[in-house]
Amino acid sequence: MIKVGIVGGTGYTGVELLRLLAQHPNVSVEAITSRSEAGVKVCDMYPNLRGHYDTLAFSEPDAKQLGALDAVFFATPHGVAHALAGELLEKGTRIIDLSADFRLRDADVWSQWYGQPHGAPSLLEEAVYGLPEMHREQIKTARLIAVPGCYPTAVQLGYLPLLEAGLIDSQQLIADCKSGVTGAGRGAKVPSLLAEASESFKAYGASGHRHLPEIRQGLSDMQANPVGLTFVPHLTPMIRGIHATLYSQLTATTDDLQALFEQRYANEPFVDVMPAGSHPETRSVKGINTCRLAVHRPENSNTVVVLSVIDNLVKGASGQAIQNLNLMFGFDETMGLTAPALMP
Amino acid sequence: MIKVGIVGGTGYTGVELLRLLAQHPNVSVEAITSRSEAGVKVCDMYPNLRGHYDTLAFSEPDAKQLGALDAVFFATPHGVAHALAGELLEKGTRIIDLSADFRLRDADVWSQWYGQPHGAPSLLEEAVYGLPEMHREQIKTARLIAVPGCYPTAVQLGYLPLLEAGLIDSQQLIADCKSGVTGAGRGAKVPSLLAEASESFKAYGASGHRHLPEIRQGLSDMQANPVGLTFVPHLTPMIRGIHATLYSQLTATTDDLQALFEQRYANEPFVDVMPAGSHPETRSVKGINTCRLAVHRPENSNTVVVLSVIDNLVKGASGQAIQNLNLMFGFDETMGLTAPALMP
Amino acid sequence: MIKVGIVGGTGYTGVELLRLLAQHPNVSVEAITSRSEAGVKVCDMYPNLRGHYDTLAFSEPDAKQLGALDAVFFATPHGVAHALAGELLEKGTRIIDLSADFRLRDADVWSQWYGQPHGAPSLLEEAVYGLPEMHREQIKTARLIAVPGCYPTAVQLGYLPLLEAGLIDSQQLIADCKSGVTGAGRGAKVPSLLAEASESFKAYGASGHRHLPEIRQGLSDMQANPVGLTFVPHLTPMIRGIHATLYSQLTATTDDLQALFEQRYANEPFVDVMPAGSHPETRSVKGINTCRLAVHRPENSNTVVVLSVIDNLVKGASGQAIQNLNLMFGFDETMGLTAPALMP
Amino acid sequence: MIKVGIVGGTGYTGVELLRLLAQHPNVSVEAITSRSEAGVKVCDMYPNLRGHYDTLAFSEPDAKQLGALDAVFFATPHGVAHALAGELLEKGTRIIDLSADFRLRDADVWSQWYGQPHGAPSLLEEAVYGLPEMHREQIKTARLIAVPGCYPTAVQLGYLPLLEAGLIDSQQLIADCKSGVTGAGRGAKVPSLLAEASESFKAYGASGHRHLPEIRQGLSDMQANPVGLTFVPHLTPMIRGIHATLYSQLTATTDDLQALFEQRYANEPFVDVMPAGSHPETRSVKGINTCRLAVHRPENSNTVVVLSVIDNLVKGASGQAIQNLNLMFGFDETMGLTAPALMP
Repeated sequence: MIKVGIVGGTGYTGVELLRLLAQHPNVSVEAITSRSEAGVKVCDMYPNLRGHYDTLAFSEPDAKQLGALDAVFFATPHGVAHALAGELLEKGTRIIDLSADFRLRDADVWSQWYGQPHGAPSLLEEAVYGLPEMHREQIKTARLIAVPGCYPTAVQLGYLPLLEAGLIDSQQLIADCKSGVTGAGRGAKVPSLLAEASESFKAYGASGHRHLPEIRQGLSDMQANPVGLTFVPHLTPMIRGIHATLYSQLTATTDDLQALFEQRYANEPFVDVMPAGSHPETRSVKGINTCRLAVHRPENSNTVVVLSVIDNLVKGASGQAIQNLNLMFGFDETMGLTAPALMP
Repeated sequence: MIKVGIVGGTGYTGVELLRLLAQHPNVSVEAITSRSEAGVKVCDMYPNLRGHYDTLAFSEPDAKQLGALDAVFFATPHGVAHALAGELLEKGTRIIDLSADFRLRDADVWSQWYGQPHGAPSLLEEAVYGLPEMHREQIKTARLIAVPGCYPTAVQLGYLPLLEAGLIDSQQLIADCKSGVTGAGRGAKVPSLLAEASESFKAYGASGHRHLPEIRQGLSDMQANPVGLTFVPHLTPMIRGIHATLYSQLTATTDDLQALFEQRYANEPFVDVMPAGSHPETRSVKGINTCRLAVHRPENSNTVVVLSVIDNLVKGASGQAIQNLNLMFGFDETMGLTAPALMP
Repeated sequence: MIKVGIVGGTGYTGVELLRLLAQHPNVSVEAITSRSEAGVKVCDMYPNLRGHYDTLAFSEPDAKQLGALDAVFFATPHGVAHALAGELLEKGTRIIDLSADFRLRDADVWSQWYGQPHGAPSLLEEAVYGLPEMHREQIKTARLIAVPGCYPTAVQLGYLPLLEAGLIDSQQLIADCKSGVTGAGRGAKVPSLLAEASESFKAYGASGHRHLPEIRQGLSDMQANPVGLTFVPHLTPMIRGIHATLYSQLTATTDDLQALFEQRYANEPFVDVMPAGSHPETRSVKGINTCRLAVHRPENSNTVVVLSVIDNLVKGASGQAIQNLNLMFGFDETMGLTAPALMP
Repeated sequence: MIKVGIVGGTGYTGVELLRLLAQHPNVSVEAITSRSEAGVKVCDMYPNLRGHYDTLAFSEPDAKQLGALDAVFFATPHGVAHALAGELLEKGTRIIDLSADFRLRDADVWSQWYGQPHGAPSLLEEAVYGLPEMHREQIKTARLIAVPGCYPTAVQLGYLPLLEAGLIDSQQLIADCKSGVTGAGRGAKVPSLLAEASESFKAYGASGHRHLPEIRQGLSDMQANPVGLTFVPHLTPMIRGIHATLYSQLTATTDDLQALFEQRYANEPFVDVMPAGSHPETRSVKGINTCRLAVHRPENSNTVVVLSVIDNLVKGASGQAIQNLNLMFGFDETMGLTAPALMP
């Protein structure tokens, strides 16, 4: 049984960590911090946790307390992990950061997209990008994990087999992505109201979104070459789920894209290549850590269309964080992550 | 490890049994029947089950096969369990019937509401009404369980402490109930289309609904007296959840309704009495077997308002069925039913 | 062509006034005020108004400008109309107040429910409660209209025929009401987020809601006797619509409730008594000023159940305000309010 | 006042024609046919029409009756208009066909996609494709109009300025489209149930959809050259609305795409080019005949992204049909189509 803490636990990724960890046999949540809600019991804020965390309450962040734990999750806005990570690492606590703080290797690029100086550039070298399907071995021994963003997870897993195999033109990638509203967080903003966001659909950030440099970095790594990518996110009237529709152009002849995907992910516990001709639904992964993929080649042309769905709060955040934790601590990679999706 | 089967597994209660049983350590699903889908793998119809039931396929119902199992769930339209139950009981298979076939003790009342003769009146005497909070001891030794309906579960658990204590006028009960659309089943009907049922709210069956006699029977049992009940169900634009708003008139002076409820349910693993002043949300029980209750006395008048929420597919159907199975087979009552609700 | 203004136009009732008035042949909107959005064009905030109000912009409230208009709508939080009404009335501007400021005749009761002193008690005597089905003649000559609240409109129209005819026990009224989320306004609050309010249903204010004294006052007027009323509002996961389910006990024998309702509303342009046995859907009034009613008597008992649906933003607010304006200025009562509901 | 009929009026485009025509000052609906619902009053099936069509009832299709009308709308599945059109045209009735029957100029292509022989190839030559922004003059004198499909309308209006100006590579067009569920019609199908389609998002027809040849034909016409197009439609959990996200590659240097779009549509009453940087929401056109467009050039690259939204039942079907009728009969093009969108 290891002891963990959560910094910034009032948002959706925080409560999702609690929901998932309630089912984890080897993890005990010892602390959850929130300046604004200090003193409030988590089950009073999130009644779904009644009966699971009846005494745990939000507390002020305390480096001494956190530094005594085996691992700490950061479920915070960007910038917070920068400030605390160094101190915790020194105390021997391993860090799993769900924010964007350590995802980009280049501190200057980070500063450019987040509009502030990078607060911990010296830690970038040892930070490991926590996409197990790409970096499993490094994750196992890492002290500091940057959990991938939700869009980047769906997009990278969809392009990975194609880019690794060198089958597509990496300069002409188009990722048309659709997300449920929890992707915008739990902040009280007018556009996120049910009265505003339901019964409607819209794009946003068409001219540039913060996940763009992260996706570019990941896709470029897959074939050691900077990619050309257009990324347009959209807001969908649902709570959870991301659907990425990924377009690319074949540059090589290939017999069987279906087999390529199935082979690449044959041993991946959380990537499910659907049968040929499938159209995965986001609800088929509601609440679980699986990414489901389907690959199409319309009219047998040179255009490949990959459909990739995840739950943005699970494989796109808290579930993937736990998958990383399992790898870091030598647990079975799927521990605590085995329930089926809620459907209908 | 016991072996179970599911008759009529293509509907929502069938797939929900599969979802929940995938987490049950002591149960193996050996058969799931459907005439219309025989030969189809369950994970092809319900992709959320991929990775959990990769070989299980729907089969034609076969009394010999079913009769070799420890228990069989009926997740069928009314009338089907009537036809098969006797034969299976003779073979020693215990039956947990999620349909309405054995809920009413009086075969004539059943015929009147269901418009056909009762098909197995001789079994009525031994059928046990599977509401553990009322009939736990009988359930433990039962061979034939009638799992309560969804509305009846929410309504009975809400009125139970008041009626048992004799505090309210049992002739003036009003149950205003709201259900998500899965309550109408998976049949392809125009009124259940997203385009028809979303962004709208309506009552139905205001002049009489089939759950009325079941609720009346249950409430009457609580104080050995026929009740006077008005029951109006409503359709709510959401997938899962029932909210019962229960009105009654106090006939006795009472100090503390909150304490009454808390004491009555102190040892019930699946009934959660919320703190005074609460308004339970249906989403707080999404996917789980818990009923959450709150009791109000507006303006300190004689009117009591009880708010009762369940997930219609879990505590209102498949979860309660498994709770019954746990009791029947001597397992911990909560086995396989311990995950927190999915929220948000 | 009369000239009107809107004070406090950024909320849902403000934009709904603009939407409806765009179709009104005899009204020109000359001013719309908002301190926070002054200078912003209404069509930039509400793109559905592009092409209809391409130059109108929010402005600081200016009593001189408003006082030069024929009528001013207040679509403001409570308290604002108190402060401005007297001055505008002096300048000869007629006022149609959509807020709660002048709905209660008793300033003390108002203070008790709104937690602040009443700001214009001297105007209460001349304020007319703008429910045309009750007070049409007074409305025609009124200078100051208090437009009824949304719940009060649905509840009063449902009980009106029964109470006027003296057929029910006025001490045992139960109004179980369900509202879409626009009833909570356009404020950025966490509970109103799509991620929080969709796929869920809950009661609120079970122990007392501000619309309660307004409803009581209206129902009491119908039979010159204080009523006994329990009112429980619920939040429904949809944008628009109110469904009131109204329970009462018959005290007199009656032949035909259906005929009673049809006769009472035979000449009402905005009350539609549905055929016997109907269950009106809120979507059948989406965007329009109609209240649809159905009356049931379950199992021929003494309990009467009335189902009443309105669009909370139209008959429950802005549409009813325009209906009042039509009466005040001698226009056809339905002018600008004749489009059919949007369905599906 | 002209007299019109609707063949096949029980579906969503049929009732939408009735809703819109109720506001049209120059049109009287004399007949609406449906074999399955003959004898049923339209307001009994669609209660939003109560008070607008209180006597109109569905009738058996009768060529004699229809042939005496000025115009007939076909709101039917494919194949029906083929069978009736010739006879009606001979009688002098003008036809506005909302189905796919006359959209493709090549009968062989039609047969290939619809799996049956074309039933009226001799009429293809005189059929006019009813996209007013492309074919306004021909529409004015046409006897037979093929109203464009919903996806084709959104896609064509988005690409039109770019293709006409020859600015993009017509061989690399990608249209990622999202539709509300009314696009699937009112048929009772399991995947369209609220319990199946809400809280989820999926692609469908990724390998080929019937609107593909129609879109190709239209886009090819714009620059007299066959285009290369990938089209992937998606199902969105909302009732109405289409959002097309259109990708293309610039082949020419251009100063100002925003100005190009604004100039092309300067005189179009139903195309609204949003300000630079906008992201149009589908709800901003809910219930109206407008297409709103925005054009983006992410990071100033050569990729152009056009965002195009329509209401699939209005500009994508019934509204555009009425726009065509207005042109054919010399009415103001916007007659009956001037109400603002319902928002929120």
